[in-house]
Parts: sequence; structure tokens; C-alpha cells
Amino acid sequence: MSSKKVTPVQQLGEFGLIDRLTSGFKMKQESTLLGVGDDAAVIRYGEVCQVVTTDLLVEGIHFDLVYTPLRHLGYKAVVVNLSDVYAMNAAPRQITVSIAVSGKFSVEAIEQIYEGVKMACDRYGVDLIGGDTSASVTGLFITVTALGTARREELTLRSGAKVNNLICVTGDLGAAYMGLKVLEREKALHEQDPEIQPELKGYDYILERFLKPELRIDVLLALRGQDVVPTSMMDISDGLSSELLHICKQSKCGCQIYQDRIPIAEETARAASEFEMDPLIAALNGGEDYELLFTVPLSAHEKVKTIPGIHIIGNITDLKDHAVLVTQQGEVIRLEAQGWNAYRNR
Amino acid sequence: MSSKKVTPVQQLGEFGLIDRLTSGFKMKQESTLLGVGDDAAVIRYGEVCQVVTTDLLVEGIHFDLVYTPLRHLGYKAVVVNLSDVYAMNAAPRQITVSIAVSGKFSVEAIEQIYEGVKMACDRYGVDLIGGDTSASVTGLFITVTALGTARREELTLRSGAKVNNLICVTGDLGAAYMGLKVLEREKALHEQDPEIQPELKGYDYILERFLKPELRIDVLLALRGQDVVPTSMMDISDGLSSELLHICKQSKCGCQIYQDRIPIAEETARAASEFEMDPLIAALNGGEDYELLFTVPLSAHEKVKTIPGIHIIGNITDLKDHAVLVTQQGEVIRLEAQGWNAYRNR
Repeated sequence: MSSKKVTPVQQLGEFGLIDRLTSGFKMKQESTLLGVGDDAAVIRYGEVCQVVTTDLLVEGIHFDLVYTPLRHLGYKAVVVNLSDVYAMNAAPRQITVSIAVSGKFSVEAIEQIYEGVKMACDRYGVDLIGGDTSASVTGLFITVTALGTARREELTLRSGAKVNNLICVTGDLGAAYMGLKVLEREKALHEQDPEIQPELKGYDYILERFLKPELRIDVLLALRGQDVVPTSMMDISDGLSSELLHICKQSKCGCQIYQDRIPIAEETARAASEFEMDPLIAALNGGEDYELLFTVPLSAHEKVKTIPGIHIIGNITDLKDHAVLVTQQGEVIRLEAQGWNAYRNR
Repeated sequence: MSSKKVTPVQQLGEFGLIDRLTSGFKMKQESTLLGVGDDAAVIRYGEVCQVVTTDLLVEGIHFDLVYTPLRHLGYKAVVVNLSDVYAMNAAPRQITVSIAVSGKFSVEAIEQIYEGVKMACDRYGVDLIGGDTSASVTGLFITVTALGTARREELTLRSGAKVNNLICVTGDLGAAYMGLKVLEREKALHEQDPEIQPELKGYDYILERFLKPELRIDVLLALRGQDVVPTSMMDISDGLSSELLHICKQSKCGCQIYQDRIPIAEETARAASEFEMDPLIAALNGGEDYELLFTVPLSAHEKVKTIPGIHIIGNITDLKDHAVLVTQQGEVIRLEAQGWNAYRNR
């Protein structure tokens, strides 16, 4: 290997790495409607389209067992995958769960993870149909694959946004990130002085957003009830900026969003001020909110306006790859993807 | 946690753990035809049944990078999953591949894994449709999920074996295990004295069986050509004994197999004798051969006999007769599952 080129993974980042690894693969199966590059892949079975998505959660990278209860971990591992299924406007049906655990985990500990898995299966009506269990040398690894269904005309890809479409987000953003910041702070204090007990009172909302995210089925049902099919949709797992750039890239368009329209909860703003941080940064670049980002035709404006939990934050433009934020002062700032990237230092 | 019961995972073993973790889950989706407990799960889409299977490969548990080339690892990670699809008598169509890598892996190293993935996709005609990439704190983890299709009447479950069915295996057994033994021996010698170069000449067959398993599509096609649908089928990944016990348990039957009918390659026997080991043990309890184990009605005897690569090794018996091996001396020995179990010491 000595004379060969060695590129550190950080240099490419996650999305660059995926592009490089998968660009040489050609689709051969007639049933493969969509491969790598959206929230989920799509396989066609006659009238039904199946969406397939998978996520890997790694101890020390995606979660810290010091402050993550095992039940919550199992729950969240499922929910983040179902989030990708819903983001395709599909209904989740089945999951597989694979785990690798080191010797420090007892049967009872693993059972707690599966209690969380079961809670998520019950809450979202999906079946656990398979998986794998293994030992690991160190650490805990969970991989979930989720399968869902939709009719083809209902599917919402990242590539369907059109100029003048309205950009919408659900709920509020940045809360999960601030929840994580609080947990990390209390962990650090406890490590410095084990006598100090974590002080988590008053942070319930943002902690819950981080530890036990819930999905916006209410909004999806309301959109369906109003006969609005989004032109594009994603879940917000890496931060609003990163997701908007994905939509712009794949829809070959630009976008402008307005700072004063980005929904930020009071609890998030309060926690941000404790950290002397602009809550906008948490909303743009924090991640794991699992809210929905979608675009709708301008003609759907009246309908969308009436649906609780939806915020119209901007519009799609024709300036290719030019994604901007308009600040309260009227400044125009280019958005950059500084989302959660497991390969970069956090 | 101090007052709670703590059961070490080893006490249950892999299959006991899976039973305990998944027994509380009830299937809710109409499309879920078969959940946990066979080579793959089955989902129904109108006329088509989709099979779903997933496997997790962990560095230090399932593979050792000291003697596993990265391309072979990528290839094998895919093939072991396709093996489960074929063992359902289904055709593999799509896969997802998720990997977590520590900082020691460069982009080029990960590319080598994906070259192996691509070789397997090309060889078996499947599409890579998704996955996930992540950092890990230490070690390499690969999870593959494979999707395939079959008509319902073609599916071969573990539960369909009937009394007097013939028990068949393909190819020969124990070779992969002896290949692993040779690799482990050479690694140990090299670790004792780095001057010693691994001596792998003359072991090509068994090394190839371990490092680059191929699947018995030839036999599946021949069975189809003769209109023989096995009554039950599995791939041999954990060793013949373990797999036979699965079929007996799920088909509620016993079995008897004959020592002198178990196919063992000359190269396997030769390597076993070097290790002063009975090659029968490698065939019964070694694993990773990825040959097929299946049962057919007695009436298919003439057809099966003519298909190259199939060996009839015994027959299904009544439940009370247990699973037994009849030795060359006529002794009757109960089979025990001593297959590869990642949770036990190897």
C-alpha cells in the first residue's frame, strides 16, 4: 500500500464519499425505480412502490450511552428510519434491526433496546420482520432498515422542486441540537466532579426533542386531506441548510429563505442564549429535529397556510445551486452545509 | 441497575437471544407473510413475494483484516446475504450496504470494499440501491440487506420438511472451515516471528472456499429445470448440524444422516489431517461453506440423483427419532449444534 494514494475520509465528507463509492454502480433490475441519493430507494411491484432506507447508529459517534437511555436509543434508531420513509410520502410497513454488542452488555440491557424498538413499532404500526445479532469487540452498533409503500404518483423525491414553489418546514428547528448541547454540558461537569448531579430541569422540551423524536404524521395526513402533494420533500436530520442544499442540487434550482420565518421554539432560544449562541445557527446547522422540509406549488398557498404546524419559510428560485438566507436586516447570505457530519470533528 | 438481573449473552447464545428479543413482537401489517425465524422474511405484493434478509459483519468477530483482502470482504458481505435469498428459492434483486469505519481506513481502502461489492452485484445481477456510511470509534462494520422475489408457491421455508423426505446437500462441506484454520495458523506463526512469510501454497481450494464463497445457482436452476421444488431449504452458514437442527425444529421432525454420504473434498480431508482433526467435525460444525441444505419428496429421488453437485445424505424421520448421524460403524449419534456462534469462544 506504501506507494498508493491515501485520501483521508474527512477530505470528502459523507456525501462526497457516498458519491465516489456508488457512482460506478449501474442499475440492472427493471424493478429498481430509484437507487442511491434520496431519503430512500424505490422498488416497483406492479401498482405499488416500495421504499427502502437504512441507517447505522454507532456508539461514540451517533449516541453516547452516558446520557442516552437504552429504550430511547432503540426507539430513536427505528424512528429515524421511519422518518426517511415518511419523507418519501410513503407509509412505513416493516423494519429489520441488527445489533452488534460488546461483552459489557447483558441480555437485559439488549432487551431494553428492543423494548424501545417495540414501542416504536407499536406507535407507528410497523412489523419487525428480521435482523441479525452479533458480538462486537467494542461498542454498540445498530442498523435499521425500513420498508414502506406508496403509490408512484404520491412519492415525493428531492428532485421535484420547481421555481416559485413555496418552501415549508414543520414544527420548530434547532431544539434537538440544543438538547444535545445541554446533555454534553452536564456530562462534562459530571466528569470534572462526580459529585455534581446533572441539572436537567427546565429543559424537558429540548431534551425530549433530542432523545425521543416524533414524526409529523399529522402534517402528512393534513396535506393528504387537502389534496396537496409536495413537489419535493426531505426529513431534517442534518440541519436545514444541508437539506435545502440537497433539494437545490437534485432539483437543479436555488432557494431563498427568510430568517424571520424560521420557526424556533422559545425553549430553544433560551438554551441558545445560555450558551451565548445564535439560535439561528442551531436551526440551520444543528440536526436530528426530524421535522419535514418540503416544497409545494404557489397555488397550494391558501391550503398550506391553514394547516397547523406548517411554516412557509421561503421560495425556490432559478439561480442554480444558489441557496441563500435573507436576514432580518435584509442581508443575503449563502447557505453552507455545516450539518452533522460524522466524519468531521464536532 | 445494581439490583437487577444480569444475564450474560453467552448464556443464551445467538438463537436463544433472538427468540427472547423478538418473541413479544406481533405482526400487524397484512403484507407481512413471514417474520423472524427463517433465512429471510417474506412480504407480499400482490402476486409477488419479496424476501428480505440482513447480515452484520464485524471486524474481529466475523473477519480478520490480517488475512482478509478488502475486496474479498466486500464481495463476501454481499454473497452471504444473497445466499439467504437463494435459500428461500428466491431471486435476489437489490441490496443496501452500510459501513462504519474507523479513522485508520482511507477512502481508497473503502473503495476496495466497494469494488468487491460491485463484483458481487455484477456476478449475481443485483442493484446496490442504498446504504449508509459512518465513522466508527474502532473497527470496521458492514451491514448488508438483500431483497429478492419469488412466487409464493416457489418459496422454500425451513418448516416444510416431511417424514421420509430425502435430505440433500450441495458441493462439499468443511472446506471453508479448514481454510480458516490454515489462515489462523499462518497468522499465528507470522505473529511469533515476523520473518516467517505465510505459506499458503497448495491450499488454494479451501482458502478460496473461505475467502470467496460462490453460490449454487447451478443446482437451483437444475432443480427448477426438473420441476423439483424442495420441501425445505437453508444455506449452510453455521455448519450442517446446526442447520439440520433448525429444519427439524421448525418442521417438527427428526432426521438421520449417514457419515459416509457427507461430501468432503480431498483438500479438506488433507488439511484436517495436518491439524490432526476429523474432517467430519469440520463438515458438521464448521461453517461458512454457503452450500445448500434441502429436502425433497422421496418421489424426486430419480430426478435429484441425476443433478451434478447434489448429494443425498439421509432422510427426515419422525420427531421422536431426533436428529442423528449414523457412523460408518453403524453407531447412532445425536447431532448437536456446535456451529459458529459469535457469542461463544471460538
